[in-house]
Amino acid sequence: MSISNIESLIPKLLDGSKRALARAITLAENDPQSARELVELIHPHTGKAHVVGITGPPGAGKSSLVTELGLELRKRNLKIAILAIDPSSPFTGGAILGDRVRMRDLSGDSGVFIRSMASRGSLGGLAKATSAVVKLLDAARHDLILLETVGAGQAEVDIATQSHTTLVVEAPGMGDDVQSIKAGILEIADILVVNKADKPGASRTAKSLEMMLHLGPTGGTRHHGVIMDTPEVVMEKSADAWEIPVLKASAAEQTGISEIVDAILAHQSHLESTGQMVERNRQKYRSEIENILVERVLAQYLKSADNPDLDQLLDKLVQREIDPYSVVDNLLEKRQEARG
Amino acid sequence: MSISNIESLIPKLLDGSKRALARAITLAENDPQSARELVELIHPHTGKAHVVGITGPPGAGKSSLVTELGLELRKRNLKIAILAIDPSSPFTGGAILGDRVRMRDLSGDSGVFIRSMASRGSLGGLAKATSAVVKLLDAARHDLILLETVGAGQAEVDIATQSHTTLVVEAPGMGDDVQSIKAGILEIADILVVNKADKPGASRTAKSLEMMLHLGPTGGTRHHGVIMDTPEVVMEKSADAWEIPVLKASAAEQTGISEIVDAILAHQSHLESTGQMVERNRQKYRSEIENILVERVLAQYLKSADNPDLDQLLDKLVQREIDPYSVVDNLLEKRQEARG
Repeated sequence: MSISNIESLIPKLLDGSKRALARAITLAENDPQSARELVELIHPHTGKAHVVGITGPPGAGKSSLVTELGLELRKRNLKIAILAIDPSSPFTGGAILGDRVRMRDLSGDSGVFIRSMASRGSLGGLAKATSAVVKLLDAARHDLILLETVGAGQAEVDIATQSHTTLVVEAPGMGDDVQSIKAGILEIADILVVNKADKPGASRTAKSLEMMLHLGPTGGTRHHGVIMDTPEVVMEKSADAWEIPVLKASAAEQTGISEIVDAILAHQSHLESTGQMVERNRQKYRSEIENILVERVLAQYLKSADNPDLDQLLDKLVQREIDPYSVVDNLLEKRQEARG
Repeated sequence: MSISNIESLIPKLLDGSKRALARAITLAENDPQSARELVELIHPHTGKAHVVGITGPPGAGKSSLVTELGLELRKRNLKIAILAIDPSSPFTGGAILGDRVRMRDLSGDSGVFIRSMASRGSLGGLAKATSAVVKLLDAARHDLILLETVGAGQAEVDIATQSHTTLVVEAPGMGDDVQSIKAGILEIADILVVNKADKPGASRTAKSLEMMLHLGPTGGTRHHGVIMDTPEVVMEKSADAWEIPVLKASAAEQTGISEIVDAILAHQSHLESTGQMVERNRQKYRSEIENILVERVLAQYLKSADNPDLDQLLDKLVQREIDPYSVVDNLLEKRQEARG
């Protein structure tokens, strides 16, 4: 699609056209160059939406919970977008919609935009176009963007770096398993939800989570984006610290939903009133720049078509005539020479 | 540590000194520059060990299974190293050893080297030093290196790119959950193990896994490292294809262990006889180069100390005066100018 065509989408998108938005998202997903052009054009119009990441282990009932949160947010007259990232695989042949059928309850509502994105191939990460798509949803004047990962928790950190507020959803029994918790999902949470609270064991799971929060070095406060390299360091709890709530809910019985929405909005206010919102936005941008930079550099140095030396260097590596660090030196120098 | 001291470790390490090996690993873990020097020195001495990655969801009993596999491999007079990657977190304050206590059965054996590495901070990935440490274990003449990730399956692809043979361990009930499977763990498996086969439902889980393998586009063959971008493409099964076995085992009752070891060794022979070993090694090196390159480039462009412009650019981004793609252009150009 030509730039002028992309340009013509923007005013419609800003004006709330779902069709223009859907078109722009498809372009951003399918073509990195279009993603770049779209982002350049809409960036000045972004920064209003509050991005809520929702993650947690498979089986915690995230999709149903997102649907209920959507319905509750609509009651409060907030315009929302739901972006579900599905880890597709060669085995499933695409995004699985699963129990997302219930989202249809929402999809008739003009104040709701729902989209599912396949994270094709990028196991362990969000779809590459996620940043761009979130920006498009933001520019299209959604008050809240619910960013949901489907399936195993491989994208926890990615989702946290892209969100203002991160919800970690567990289910009864899950929180009791040290193994599921030590995977590091707790330290990215701003709000912890024990879903399926109608099932036995919910209170016990909530208590375990609370205990773990208070045992942690941050005493229940989160240092967003700061993956601590020195776990020994005990962080001082400041007056500006956010107390991570542990909330029980049941999407099936529609209980506890309103409390979660309250907590999300309270967290948003907290970030704004303490000035932490600016810091989070800087971190979001930093990670976005990192992704763009890495993609660009890998394309530049490691695309065989672009770099006939690479195959030869790999041969030498396999023959153990050269070591990997020297290969990188070699690649960087060659490129430097070619330019200089 | 000075280079000459590092150099003095090498002959001892090659000679089988566990102390020299442990020392070298600690150096590689704690200091990237030492890792580089060690890798440069030992790279010519590597390439003999067969690297077996072991992954799977939390609760599948990976650690106990690894212990049993270790004991069985020792019966066959193979020298082995076990490297357990623990996703430490600020909450746990370091690597959790969990039921690793049982590994003590093995640790008295002179033909076994066991090491636990914290994947501090790099949630979603293996520890940065993993490649270097695997090379040290290889140079120290271990026949097999068992590379185990503890906890959630966030490091599946990482482990597959570092391994010659990848074992995916499930437990009864787990394989039946579409959500746990669609996370993409199946397409990295060379061998599937249903552990805890003494528990009810093991046969059903094994059948589900087999069905899923045969439903998949590759018809039960794995294309290592090829994360397919187009799930629609049905790969032709070649004569050189490896049939992924689904094996039932119980670490607790010590059943099925010998069969897993047979399958690992059969896979190793298969890779060698079909020439696929060379291709896997090339892919391993490619991903290692990628990691070194990304680390180098990120350090170069995104370390604030090294780049005072970054803070200013982030400010402009937050103010929406510039978009992220232009920031990357800007960073790359500035660096170019500074050099040229």
